This record gives sequence, C-alpha cells and structure tokens, in this order.
Amino acid sequence: MKIPVLVINFKSYMESIGKRAIEISKIAEKVSEDTGITIVVAPTFVDIVKVKENVSIPVFAQHADPINPGAFTGRVNIENLKDWGIDGIIINHSEYQLKISEIDFLIKMARSKNMETITCTNNIDVTKAIAELAPEYIAIEPPELIGGEISVSRARPEVIENSVKMVENINKNIRVLCGAGVKNSEDVKRAMELGSKGILVASGVVKAKNTEAAIRDLVKGMGE
Amino acid sequence: MKIPVLVINFKSYMESIGKRAIEISKIAEKVSEDTGITIVVAPTFVDIVKVKENVSIPVFAQHADPINPGAFTGRVNIENLKDWGIDGIIINHSEYQLKISEIDFLIKMARSKNMETITCTNNIDVTKAIAELAPEYIAIEPPELIGGEISVSRARPEVIENSVKMVENINKNIRVLCGAGVKNSEDVKRAMELGSKGILVASGVVKAKNTEAAIRDLVKGMGE
Amino acid sequence: MKIPVLVINFKSYMESIGKRAIEISKIAEKVSEDTGITIVVAPTFVDIVKVKENVSIPVFAQHADPINPGAFTGRVNIENLKDWGIDGIIINHSEYQLKISEIDFLIKMARSKNMETITCTNNIDVTKAIAELAPEYIAIEPPELIGGEISVSRARPEVIENSVKMVENINKNIRVLCGAGVKNSEDVKRAMELGSKGILVASGVVKAKNTEAAIRDLVKGMGE
Amino acid sequence: MKIPVLVINFKSYMESIGKRAIEISKIAEKVSEDTGITIVVAPTFVDIVKVKENVSIPVFAQHADPINPGAFTGRVNIENLKDWGIDGIIINHSEYQLKISEIDFLIKMARSKNMETITCTNNIDVTKAIAELAPEYIAIEPPELIGGEISVSRARPEVIENSVKMVENINKNIRVLCGAGVKNSEDVKRAMELGSKGILVASGVVKAKNTEAAIRDLVKGMGE
Repeated sequence: MKIPVLVINFKSYMESIGKRAIEISKIAEKVSEDTGITIVVAPTFVDIVKVKENVSIPVFAQHADPINPGAFTGRVNIENLKDWGIDGIIINHSEYQLKISEIDFLIKMARSKNMETITCTNNIDVTKAIAELAPEYIAIEPPELIGGEISVSRARPEVIENSVKMVENINKNIRVLCGAGVKNSEDVKRAMELGSKGILVASGVVKAKNTEAAIRDLVKGMGE
Repeated sequence: MKIPVLVINFKSYMESIGKRAIEISKIAEKVSEDTGITIVVAPTFVDIVKVKENVSIPVFAQHADPINPGAFTGRVNIENLKDWGIDGIIINHSEYQLKISEIDFLIKMARSKNMETITCTNNIDVTKAIAELAPEYIAIEPPELIGGEISVSRARPEVIENSVKMVENINKNIRVLCGAGVKNSEDVKRAMELGSKGILVASGVVKAKNTEAAIRDLVKGMGE
Repeated sequence: MKIPVLVINFKSYMESIGKRAIEISKIAEKVSEDTGITIVVAPTFVDIVKVKENVSIPVFAQHADPINPGAFTGRVNIENLKDWGIDGIIINHSEYQLKISEIDFLIKMARSKNMETITCTNNIDVTKAIAELAPEYIAIEPPELIGGEISVSRARPEVIENSVKMVENINKNIRVLCGAGVKNSEDVKRAMELGSKGILVASGVVKAKNTEAAIRDLVKGMGE
Repeated sequence: MKIPVLVINFKSYMESIGKRAIEISKIAEKVSEDTGITIVVAPTFVDIVKVKENVSIPVFAQHADPINPGAFTGRVNIENLKDWGIDGIIINHSEYQLKISEIDFLIKMARSKNMETITCTNNIDVTKAIAELAPEYIAIEPPELIGGEISVSRARPEVIENSVKMVENINKNIRVLCGAGVKNSEDVKRAMELGSKGILVASGVVKAKNTEAAIRDLVKGMGE
C-alpha cells in the first residue's frame, strides 16, 4: 500500500457495527479517492464481507485466530478471510493481545497468503521484539495514551521517534504507525514529522459527529 | 423453532469456510424444504452474513463474545449479529468454553434480542447447572465421544436419558439436543427415543463425501 | 467446619504476602480461639505452606488449576495442595473466573480429597447454577458491590435473602456466604439475619490499620 | 550463575510435587556440590518455599503472573517470590505461554528485584524477538521435540547453532539453553558444542527411576 496510510479500526461500537460499517467505509473510500491518501477500514468479522463487497479501499480484519482450518468452533482463521479477498489483519491490538508464538504464526501465515499485517505494540522494547518478526506495519499504542485526550506526538514524541529509529535498525521494510494519542490534523502532521508512516485511529472517527469531516481532518495532516 | 432440529456446526474446516459455507447451507435448506424438518446452519462469523443472505433456514453463530457494544477490537457482540438477522447462537461449545458468568450474560442478552441459544455441556451435572440459566436448547457433548466413532445413544444412552429427565425437572421449556456420538439415522432415531429433541453435528456432514446424502440420512432418523 | 465462618481472602496485596501472611494468620487464629468463631485464611500459593505450618485454623487456597498431576508448568493441582494438608479451595473468585466444566471438575476433585470448596457467584441465576454442582459453600459477590463502600445487606438485601432460599430449594447442604459489601459488625449481623452462614472478606481485614480490631469487629457481628 | 547450567523443571507431576520436591532438590544439590556444575530446581508455587528452605542451590519459579501486588485472587506476583528469596523465574514456558507485553513486564520486574529469568521460545524468529527484551537466559523448545524421543542436537542441530548466533548478534549477555530433545550426556555434550550454555529438562529427571543417576548423566555431558 502507498504510504502514508490512515487505518480506521471500527472496534465493535454501536456506531460502527452492522450497516453503519458499510456507510463509514463508503465515506472513507470517497475521501481516499478525493485526496489520493490510502485509507484502510477494519470492521468486525461479521461485517467484513459486506464492507469488502461495497468498497474498493483496503479492508483489514481486527484480528485472526492463530490456527489452521479445522475443528475449531467460533474461531476465524486467515484462510477464511482470504476466501473473501480481505487485504490484511491487525494483530495483537491492546484489546486482543496474543502470545508471542501466535503473533509469529499469524505474521507468517498472512504473508504466505499475500495479506499484510499491522502488529500493535505497547512500548519501545516490545516494538523492537516485534520488528524481529517482520510484519509489514507496527502500530505503537502506549497504554497511557489510549482513549485519552493527550497527543502522543506532543506528550511523548520520543516514543515515536525512537521506535522509528530502532525499527529501522532491525528491518528497514517495516513501517511504523502511530496508534494512539492522535486527535486532529496537527497531531497527524507531527507524527509524520517524527517518522511515522501513518496512523491507526478508532473512536476519533467512529464516534465523530461528522464522520467525513473527521476523516478529512486527519488526512489533511498527511499533507494531502 | 419446530422440533426436532438438526443443527450443523460448520466449525472452521477447509470444507466449510468461504463460498462452500453457502453451498452447504443451500443443500441443508433444500433437504429441510423437502422433508419439513428444521435444519439450522452455523457458519463462521466471517461467512455468516453471506449465508443468511442466501438461505431462509435458521442461521446461528458458533459463538458470541460476552460484551456490550463498545471499545472491543476483534470481538463480536450479539447486537452485531442481530443487525444482520442472525437467528441464534451456540454458546460454550467444547472448543470455546466460557466462564459461567459469561454464559449467563449471553443467554440473557440473546433472549432480550429474541435470539435463541444452544448452550453446550459436557456431563449431567453441568447440564443441570446450565438448565438453571434457561437457554432454549442444551446440547450435551460427553468429551469422550467428541469426534470419535462411538455412538452416544448406544455406548452411553443413560447420559441422554438422565439429562432429559434432569432438565425436565428444572425447566420444562428447555430442549435437550444430542451433541456428540451421532453418525447415522440409526443413532438419530435412538437419540430421539431417549428423549432428545434434535442433534448437533459437525464433521459428519461437513466432511462427508456427499453432503446431501449425509444430511438426508440424519434427517431420516428424525422420522421424516 | 462449624458455622458461621469468617473467610479472609489475602489476595496478593503487599500487606498480605510473604511473612506478613503468617502474621495475619496468627492474629486470625488468636481471635478464633478467643471467640470460638471459625476463621479461615486464604493466602497465596507461595505463602500457603508456611501459613499452614504456623496456624491450626483452616487454610484455604485462593484457586486451584483444573488439572490432574502431570506435564503442566506453572500450574497448581489439588493433589499438590492436599500434600501439605491444605483444607479447602476458593473457586471461581470474580478475579479468577473459570469455565463451568472446570468448576465442576474442581468441586468433584476437592470432594474426593476431603477438601471443601467455596465457589463464588455473581448473581442469583449463577448461584442457582452453581448450587447444582454441590459445593460446600457458595459466596455471592454482586459485581457492583465489590471493593465499594455499599453494604450488600443494606443496599441489596434481597440478593442474599433470595439466594439463600433458592439454594435451599436445590440443595440444603450448601451454605451461602456473603462475599461483598460487608464492612463492619452491623453488616455482618444483617447478613446473618438474611440467612447467610458467614462472610468472605479481603481488603477490609488485609488493609486495615489494626488487623486484630478489624477481625474482632466482623466476628462480633456473628454473635460471638 | 556460573555456566553451564542444568535447569530441572519439576512441572506438576505426581513424582515431583509435595515432599518429593524437596527430595529431588536435595539430590540435585548433592550432585551440584560433587561436580561443581550449577543446578537449578524449579518446583511448583506451593512447594517452592519449602524447597528453598531445604537447599542452597538456586530455586526458580515455573511462572509468575504479570501483575504488581494488589487485588488479584489466586495469582502470584514477583514480589511474593522475592519475599522468600526465590532466585529466578521461568517465563513463557510452552505450557504457559504469555502475551508479549507480559513477557516484557516480567523480565523488567524480575531484573528490578535482582532475579534472573529464563524465557522460553519455540523457534528462531521468536528467539530473536525475545532477545530484544534481554532476559538473562533463553531456552529454546522446538514444539516438535517436546516430550519426544528425538534429540534436538542430532535431529535439528541448526536450531541451536543459529539461535546462538542470532542471539549473540542482538545481545551478547544472553545465554541460550537447549530446552527440548535432551535425553542423555551425549545430547548434552553436543548441545554444548553447538553453543548452548546449559539445558532445561523435566520428565527426563523427574520421571527417571533413579533420579541421581539421571542428573549425574546429564551433568557428565557438561564436562564435569
């Protein structure tokens, strides 16, 4: 995918599940077409196929279970996502953390199916560890900033700056995303200056009164 | 739903995910229409909306996460399933067991949305415990019979017989299903004689060489 | 054990781990000897053998893993607790909830070793479900009262009263304990009047400035 | 600790819990004194304090929960182990795998208490990831060799050899242990030649008919 990227994690908010997932995705698609900026949407497992049918921007899953196809009830394997053309997977989100061996399994399995992964991390050391597993993207979410009002690029700019440097030392192909503490175009702009190649957002878009305005504001910070 | 019922759990087998989930569901629908027997299909979260769009028989989820809508990444709440008209939920399958407080939450939440639940249990005592939570269906899966060649109705008929009696004493509205050790119409017939109101199967149908023949054979045991 | 009982869950507070676990236990033993009221202490796995060596009041574990002895690293089976004479086990505490099949396994395994279990529940329906599994004690902890300032016997007396009735209908041998919202002798007295046969406390004793005074106050409510 | 090291994971086998944990530990201590080779014992949480009281060789826990002291029932924090002088902790064993953020937490917490950690890994990539978190020891347990009859140093010598090289590139202070597929002194000798600084064993010692002979045989391979 062309960088920078704006990744919208729908989580499972009342505002983003069911048919509303399609609506938000269509708005994201429209802004992406207008501005040329890559926008990725990540709806729930249940909504994901309908979203994929309705938009042409990349669609990622919020998670995948670290299993091969088989006798697993209630689980979603990567093959099942690939069947419907899903483009990639968010792995190890702070709300769905995984064992290290599972993260390794998922990154390799996704790569074998030509699907990209965004692996989430919570600090610089964990970011370095994950970099050794070579996901396409790493999204840093310092826990103290998740869901809060503080901007990562202002309050803790060194987390992004150092993570970008550390990851570059380990594997130049990995792109670092800023995964928390981004509220507006100013934050986005600053995150880009610090070396991040995009951002991962959720409530800032999903719970916005005006979805399109919220997406456009973030994209503006990417120098569209 | 009219009893008896045949519930087909697709799990996440290679043979039952993606577009193949729709194909199996259409076959199940056809047999149901031909015979008048209620057949429920339970595809993965990813396939479930496409299956629902393509058939008119009841479609159940294999699981739901015990949460309200909100900031949960990678999870599926009941509201999200209701959005697409999903009819019910399998809860506490032996491959995805839950805490007792979570089972209680899910049964109540499903009922409030007019969705039915099939709660799985592993022995008579657990069956009695779950009966106190009043799900619409309880499917008994003695662990020693899961995936094996032994028939529950022949090897351990007392498990079904006693469970049916015990559940009746606690709550007459709950229907007991036989959830393991059912391979053919003879097994089904015997399970019905022992008091069960239907069966829950998986690989017997999903991995059958001839899906339609496998379904027809099971339905035959229901006195169609 | 002679009722009523006061069960002190040490959790893993800084104030109750290591040698302090022995000190608190000795104070509890002294009060028990002075008053004749049964007091149970529940220290961490690490502290439990040293506590058992130092006091003669009943010592319970805060949890046990639902496994037989075998190739399990980092786990504690019931046999291992029995080896050192531990008297019983708290099961399914709100901070360590278990699958229903695991609760059933643990209650049966403990009974086969002549160890008693206190199974925790979060509401009346779950209490009824657990009553079918026949633990010696059920401790009700309504989640909205845990760790708070509200007294269960004043704010929600019907939870205790109805639970006691419901449990009695299912199994007369089970004793109901009040597991949250008990702060002082008045609360204890009220809980007893409502039919509970004891209480389960933690921070109220462990974090008290004067441990002995805190224990004596609670015991006073038991009509010592 | 002086290398090489022999680490004996007691797991929770019938043969190694309760007072038998003390007996095995005393045998290990005797062999260590006779040969000068460092031997570490890792009993269950329940047995660990009694073992520590009875031997002067290093005693490690098989696990620790990634929490600070507080309101956690049934959990064991590092502070609680430190209280009794426990020397170190096995982390992320294949039978008790952890989230990556939890491994990071535990390594840092243990270091702050002057306790060493042995972090287990399942392949070379995960080994590299864990090396970035700087535990004192990494024990490699390729899943296909655990509990089997195949020797890692013969069947897959490159796993050890490459892991040692990779870890050295990332952090020269980390010592690599061979954690599976070691049955006798020949295997141990070969593992040392391939660069490992010790081994982690379990059933080979715990379930041996003659514990002392089994330990002496392994130690012999370390060039005692």
